[in-house]
Amino acid sequence: MPNDLVAALDIGGTKIAGALVDGGGGLLTRVQRPTPAREDATRMSAAVDAVLRELTEAPAWTRVAAVGIGSAGPVDAKSGTVSPVNIPAWRAHPLVAGVRERTGGLPVSLIGDGPAIAAAEHWQGAARGRAGALCMVVSTGVGGGLILDGALHSGPTGNAGHIGHISVDLDGDLCPCGSHGCVETLASGTNIARRALASGWRPGPGQDETAAGVAAAARAGDPPARAAYDRAARALAAGIAATAALVEIEIAVIGGGVARAGAVLFDPLREELRRYATLPYVQGLEIAPATTGTDAGLIGAAAAAWRLLGAEVA
Amino acid sequence: MPNDLVAALDIGGTKIAGALVDGGGGLLTRVQRPTPAREDATRMSAAVDAVLRELTEAPAWTRVAAVGIGSAGPVDAKSGTVSPVNIPAWRAHPLVAGVRERTGGLPVSLIGDGPAIAAAEHWQGAARGRAGALCMVVSTGVGGGLILDGALHSGPTGNAGHIGHISVDLDGDLCPCGSHGCVETLASGTNIARRALASGWRPGPGQDETAAGVAAAARAGDPPARAAYDRAARALAAGIAATAALVEIEIAVIGGGVARAGAVLFDPLREELRRYATLPYVQGLEIAPATTGTDAGLIGAAAAAWRLLGAEVA
Repeated sequence: MPNDLVAALDIGGTKIAGALVDGGGGLLTRVQRPTPAREDATRMSAAVDAVLRELTEAPAWTRVAAVGIGSAGPVDAKSGTVSPVNIPAWRAHPLVAGVRERTGGLPVSLIGDGPAIAAAEHWQGAARGRAGALCMVVSTGVGGGLILDGALHSGPTGNAGHIGHISVDLDGDLCPCGSHGCVETLASGTNIARRALASGWRPGPGQDETAAGVAAAARAGDPPARAAYDRAARALAAGIAATAALVEIEIAVIGGGVARAGAVLFDPLREELRRYATLPYVQGLEIAPATTGTDAGLIGAAAAAWRLLGAEVA
Repeated sequence: MPNDLVAALDIGGTKIAGALVDGGGGLLTRVQRPTPAREDATRMSAAVDAVLRELTEAPAWTRVAAVGIGSAGPVDAKSGTVSPVNIPAWRAHPLVAGVRERTGGLPVSLIGDGPAIAAAEHWQGAARGRAGALCMVVSTGVGGGLILDGALHSGPTGNAGHIGHISVDLDGDLCPCGSHGCVETLASGTNIARRALASGWRPGPGQDETAAGVAAAARAGDPPARAAYDRAARALAAGIAATAALVEIEIAVIGGGVARAGAVLFDPLREELRRYATLPYVQGLEIAPATTGTDAGLIGAAAAAWRLLGAEVA
């Protein structure tokens, strides 16, 4: 059965994952390596090559028709290069050319990790069947991707949907991206923990100084911990409402470590959304947790590869 | 030559305009009536009917194949109804059904006035040939529309691109829409004048208490007047940068009365944009004044009608 599989690569700051994926989204032949993110470009490429070698040596490889890559951003789908913030050795690194060469000239698709997660949630997760959706990851950073008109809108460079770096507080804190008051400065796990600590929260026994620790304290009613989550919820609500006003979406899907806080995040988020999503055509906007989990990057990269082949996914 | 024309309707808070429009965007048989915006639904519909009657009585009417409507929003393209903020008598008014009935059952397209202007600028104005563009009107209010993947993205309800009502200041002033710190609360002509007056600006001889008066004072170096335009520019920059991060656009086109301030607005806007549009894939974003002028609403409504017929416009 040739051409009934695609290969997927998920390149992140901590791991490089690969898989062969069928037309139903089933994952075969999974491979994973740690990302040598602080080492040089040669070591980075060797890690990618090792993942690709394992995939290409699998018996099922002969059935693979295309390769999909989801990578930490920014990416540049036009030039086939990546410059991930968290992988300093790669700047304008020609990832697509390298992967194409090592896979015998197969067609290769490249999108950012945010769009990959949106593609995954649309294919198999909480955004299934939706014409318009914003799918977000709220973790140490904040990212996302967009489904518009029933299909992934990754944009000409593959980075669209980057909700973490829209300003919702134009006079707010300087963001590492250079802008001011980005959603990420208020809603990332790192900034939730920083804000809670700054307002007097201290980890209790068995808690650590992370957003998960703050979530545990918030569930127990600790005021600074709750305030930090409320502030994150407000920033996310403003960003989600902005997205809805701009492109019309039916649902915002939220995954990542911070989303695991559950009601501590989602309750104030739904409340704040009513304050910001006020126009008649955005009032019905739904919020849901992501469901595709840690495989989202691989599933989304595979979805993009299938789309490259003209297949209908989702 | 049947089917070589479309009819366009532009329904705004002050005027109802109509025209027959050819495939090249040429306007024939123009009609206009004042909008009885503060009167009842019967008077409103009578005004639309009067415009339609003049169009349908024109000899060229027999060549018309479709009708495009651009209306003050919000609109609901799904149900064919409109509820314009500035026309209180119309709430969920079945505009499409009425127009279809009065035009012998022709296909009718409905979009908001912001998307109509985007369609016009993409077809004949400053966004021509662009794959991604945000086209804005900055006037007594702030509106807009989006071009994505080389085509109008008006969204399922016809309201997409509404940059005036995204929050760039989540703790900011309450907006009439119910949200907080919307771009419109900082950048509309009304709010530019209000802000300048509040900081001590007073109209000089020959100036009035409007954004145009503030612009004249700003050009003469008046500090509160300049500060009001700088603040508007910052809000617009944050909103434009957010749009670029979310959907990837090449250009933001700005029309409307406030844009006529010229360098007083565009100079600080380009400077502020460098502060907010910092991600690599949005850094090349261009800013340009709109060029389609007062006919934009008609031209854009016509573009949508042509698209309904499957014609390539822009």
